[in-house]
Amino acid sequence: MIQRIHHINFIVRDLVSAIPAWERILDREVTSCDQLEERGVDIARFDLGQTWIVLVQPTRSGTVPAAHLEQHGEGFFLMSLETDSLQDEVGRLGEAMFDGVERGGLDDWQVRDVDVAGMFGVRVQLVESDGS
Amino acid sequence: MIQRIHHINFIVRDLVSAIPAWERILDREVTSCDQLEERGVDIARFDLGQTWIVLVQPTRSGTVPAAHLEQHGEGFFLMSLETDSLQDEVGRLGEAMFDGVERGGLDDWQVRDVDVAGMFGVRVQLVESDGS
Repeated sequence: MIQRIHHINFIVRDLVSAIPAWERILDREVTSCDQLEERGVDIARFDLGQTWIVLVQPTRSGTVPAAHLEQHGEGFFLMSLETDSLQDEVGRLGEAMFDGVERGGLDDWQVRDVDVAGMFGVRVQLVESDGS
Repeated sequence: MIQRIHHINFIVRDLVSAIPAWERILDREVTSCDQLEERGVDIARFDLGQTWIVLVQPTRSGTVPAAHLEQHGEGFFLMSLETDSLQDEVGRLGEAMFDGVERGGLDDWQVRDVDVAGMFGVRVQLVESDGS
């Protein structure tokens, strides 16, 4: 079952510049900064109640986030919807709805990317997580 | 105080095509369809727990949503953050952070648009609402 927006990712060129602007608008300090080496990104996230606001800075070319930055510039990258079972959602929607395979995100997040072609210009992801 | 993501708007060319795709991925029926004549849009929204997923179809040119569609195509349009007091946020952030004046949205939503220039490619809005 799709429960809520788990996180929203925005692509930025430079976390050091973007973090203070987001701290100001959200009226809270950045929660944590991480690296996701296999995805080629540095990440800063803000805890906004039930949803994480996640800033993503590509750190090398040849990755999906870097290609998105190059093609579209800074801004919205993807919306990740929380489910209690990725397996159930794949069963419900069918493998053809997805792009690539299940992969790990931050913490214990396990994600599947929905094929962007069918979602009217929006990159949607499903995520299963026991914790945050 | 910024409390949560109140709604996220995605621009689509044609609600009739987009609604079934979003119903399928979100695993729920569209909650309601509305028109916001002064904004020049037709709107369909989905209740996703604490956040509304809102699809916006521009119905005439010369509006901000129509210009966004023309320039960027379908996809993410804006993220609206709920506050218990728009007035307090404007006091905290300063008028210069905002673009335009307070305006009405759906239901009793009162919104102010943050100047997009300072938010690294993301259109952010603040919203105050007693109800939904």
